[in-house]
Amino acid sequence: MSDRRTEILRAATRVIARRGVRGLRVGELASEAGVSTSLIYYHFTDRAGILRQTLEFISDRADRYTAERDPGAQPADPRSDLEQVLLLELQDTPEVRENSTAWGELRASAVFDPDLREDLAKATHTWVHEIAELLGRAHPMGTAPAHAASAERLTALLEGLSVRWLSGSLPLEHARRLLTDAIGAELHRA
Amino acid sequence: MSDRRTEILRAATRVIARRGVRGLRVGELASEAGVSTSLIYYHFTDRAGILRQTLEFISDRADRYTAERDPGAQPADPRSDLEQVLLLELQDTPEVRENSTAWGELRASAVFDPDLREDLAKATHTWVHEIAELLGRAHPMGTAPAHAASAERLTALLEGLSVRWLSGSLPLEHARRLLTDAIGAELHRA
Repeated sequence: MSDRRTEILRAATRVIARRGVRGLRVGELASEAGVSTSLIYYHFTDRAGILRQTLEFISDRADRYTAERDPGAQPADPRSDLEQVLLLELQDTPEVRENSTAWGELRASAVFDPDLREDLAKATHTWVHEIAELLGRAHPMGTAPAHAASAERLTALLEGLSVRWLSGSLPLEHARRLLTDAIGAELHRA
Repeated sequence: MSDRRTEILRAATRVIARRGVRGLRVGELASEAGVSTSLIYYHFTDRAGILRQTLEFISDRADRYTAERDPGAQPADPRSDLEQVLLLELQDTPEVRENSTAWGELRASAVFDPDLREDLAKATHTWVHEIAELLGRAHPMGTAPAHAASAERLTALLEGLSVRWLSGSLPLEHARRLLTDAIGAELHRA
């Protein structure tokens, strides 16, 4: 991926997290990224292309920061892995807050903008499959459909908790505790 | 409540569900409601006042349609009551779709608009308390904090499932099944 293209996607995520999807104008994005509007059109064709690829950029970034591990740490057991991957989405760091805000905004915008729906559904499926796989490793005696349903519930709950946190209806530590208990309950019955 | 005021709130909900909170202009609301902009300012003072009272209108309307019962039906047991109140938020009727879209949009907007947060947190608390009370009736041997935590999880999950449904990432019937299973799991452990 070219550095310029990545820089534009990083800037698009910042702009969406600051002013929302509907606040994203190509001219503003160009000045935020320090590039020309024609370079943006060269890489992304149109506004829909920017949004689609920003969605992918946000998913990839979340994959990266939820996989981070202290280099000195013991290899984790599958349950801790699962907890880490989900709980690292509820962290008050600038990167996670920005990423979660932009993801929630793309989700909310897709209610009004049918163009976003297919890519969002794809990104959601990818996420659900990753979590289902971790659930399968943490609870190998369960069935695949039960793991998939648990993964759908846990990720939808995480989205619900995340937007409550970001909109000031739920303190972060409490959101983390609610999610931890939900993980325990899903593993218990899986 | 004056009929004119109610008519304006009904129109504000329609406009938010159609174009989003950021698409709500007082001039457009006036023509949607068939009233003058000065009447809107008389009732609501400013745009923030419109949004606050629309939030309340939406909550009250959800209270009403989730309490509807077939007049010939048997009195329900507490668990069916709980299931009904939650599952009636996932119905493909124009009223529920409009109400859920507007609620999700107010939730998403509060991430960017601090003015909305206090009223949204209040409406969320009221909802959580109602569900916690129903959980207490369905499972009287549980503790109040356990019921409250279950109510927070179930309502956050419902918000997450609802926006996935409305954004085209989850079929409605599947969302209903995921929520039904989550209610069962919360009652099982409460």
